[in-house]
Amino acid sequence: MAKASPRKAKPLFDRVCFIGIGLIGSSLARAMRRAGLAGSYVACDRNPKHVKAAVKLDITDEATRDYAKAVTGADLIVIATPVGTNGEIARLIAPHLKKGAIVTDVGSVKRMVIDTVARHIPKDVHFVPAHPIAGTEHSGPEAGFPELFENRWCILTPPKRTSAKAVGKVAELWRRIGAKVETMDPDHHDKVLAITSHLPHLIAYTIVGTATDLSGDLKQEVIKYSASGFRDFTRIAASDPIMWRDVFLNNRDAVLEILQRFTEDLTAMQRAIRKGDGPMLEDHFTRTRAIRRSIIGAKQA
Amino acid sequence: MAKASPRKAKPLFDRVCFIGIGLIGSSLARAMRRAGLAGSYVACDRNPKHVKAAVKLDITDEATRDYAKAVTGADLIVIATPVGTNGEIARLIAPHLKKGAIVTDVGSVKRMVIDTVARHIPKDVHFVPAHPIAGTEHSGPEAGFPELFENRWCILTPPKRTSAKAVGKVAELWRRIGAKVETMDPDHHDKVLAITSHLPHLIAYTIVGTATDLSGDLKQEVIKYSASGFRDFTRIAASDPIMWRDVFLNNRDAVLEILQRFTEDLTAMQRAIRKGDGPMLEDHFTRTRAIRRSIIGAKQA
Repeated sequence: MAKASPRKAKPLFDRVCFIGIGLIGSSLARAMRRAGLAGSYVACDRNPKHVKAAVKLDITDEATRDYAKAVTGADLIVIATPVGTNGEIARLIAPHLKKGAIVTDVGSVKRMVIDTVARHIPKDVHFVPAHPIAGTEHSGPEAGFPELFENRWCILTPPKRTSAKAVGKVAELWRRIGAKVETMDPDHHDKVLAITSHLPHLIAYTIVGTATDLSGDLKQEVIKYSASGFRDFTRIAASDPIMWRDVFLNNRDAVLEILQRFTEDLTAMQRAIRKGDGPMLEDHFTRTRAIRRSIIGAKQA
Repeated sequence: MAKASPRKAKPLFDRVCFIGIGLIGSSLARAMRRAGLAGSYVACDRNPKHVKAAVKLDITDEATRDYAKAVTGADLIVIATPVGTNGEIARLIAPHLKKGAIVTDVGSVKRMVIDTVARHIPKDVHFVPAHPIAGTEHSGPEAGFPELFENRWCILTPPKRTSAKAVGKVAELWRRIGAKVETMDPDHHDKVLAITSHLPHLIAYTIVGTATDLSGDLKQEVIKYSASGFRDFTRIAASDPIMWRDVFLNNRDAVLEILQRFTEDLTAMQRAIRKGDGPMLEDHFTRTRAIRRSIIGAKQA
């Protein structure tokens, strides 16, 4: 008798439904399938191209645009759409959720998602908010790949009364596909991510926009000589526009707070340049090297 | 008789002197040696550790801290130190330069370098300002490698009366080590680089500084979850502090001008977030994707 692969030994779920089969949803479907974490997989997406791609690329067993049909019988439902849609999706799927099912998500903002989703979830269904810190500048089902979450963090932000068993099952899912799991308070999550992710994206989008507004010749040269720093920003600023619009609209307070600090610091740099204050600039540029070393030390670089 | 490698067929120079043997100087020395572009190589650096490393790592044939000794007999002198030192170095080496020699540099700022260096260069010596658009966040002679300039641009900004033959020889040097060469007006160069390189570095240094000032717990979490965008900024902000201090002090007007535009654009984004203006954010984030596609089209990504 053939020995079963230990990774495929214990499916965690019978039927998994992905609502949204873009970069994150399709990567998660590919990773879960590869690890044998469920009996069957269904994709639900309101974009007909995504529905077709899910079938054509064999990302899931089935695909549909019908929310009710998709969630019926599923014991895990993963909402993987831009965070602004999550509340409405929860409202639409709620009447069709199976008793004891787990609803989870992958959104980059947690407080607003909890506030808009949780109130629609029936009492006999568990809601476990999650945020895998992984992604690329590409989007859509074609852009996904099963290794996306390997060695990346996945942060769970379950409300206090959430079933520990449900939280444990979602944590186990992420661990089995190679991610590292942490639990965090949702408001704290939103503050940390505002600094590590939302502000950097906002700045990258802004500077690339500033360059976009340049006159023709200068713009062409900016593209030609982009290898000197600007290029890294354009990669970040090529990320999905709808996803990021929703992040900023739904994590407004934390983003505005850290943006205020950043703007003050930038004004101080501007003044140092205008005044020709070499020691201030040198001191600042020396201090920032230490953070890079810490990140290398934490094996995140 | 063994057939000589075509790359090593024609040395362009008898003796090359590198003033400054850090990341750029040592990479250029390695690349020139590998391509057989000169008879002998000497490194000059005021840092005794760099002098020792140049010999120990066999980057050049000789190394010294003595400017006069280093430049004597050289027909190519490459100044590869932070731009703020270039004027003083030109003054010190001027009396020892060989008739007909070429002095070049690698600085990220061109107008100020021309203004401070050119006036010290004797009439019978040629000055050909150059800027290879290449680098890493590492510094020092150990960080250099001969492939650094391959498929990268090198911009020459020769003053009008410079000998075309001398310009041609410097261009040939860069082409032979794999770079693509362009000629540009120095003021225009400084404007283009302010956008593509100087402003992105200033912003990266600022945001990493903002994170450095966070309280202990939050700072640790920013490091832990840096993979979400922030990490790219820390890499840029780990670049050599002295080099970058000098860039900002010596390209002040162009940097302040583009910084002003960026700040206006950031303020508009801030207002859109505060007001919850989704269409404005979505429109902006969509436009920036086009620039990324242009860069991929220009094969700079």
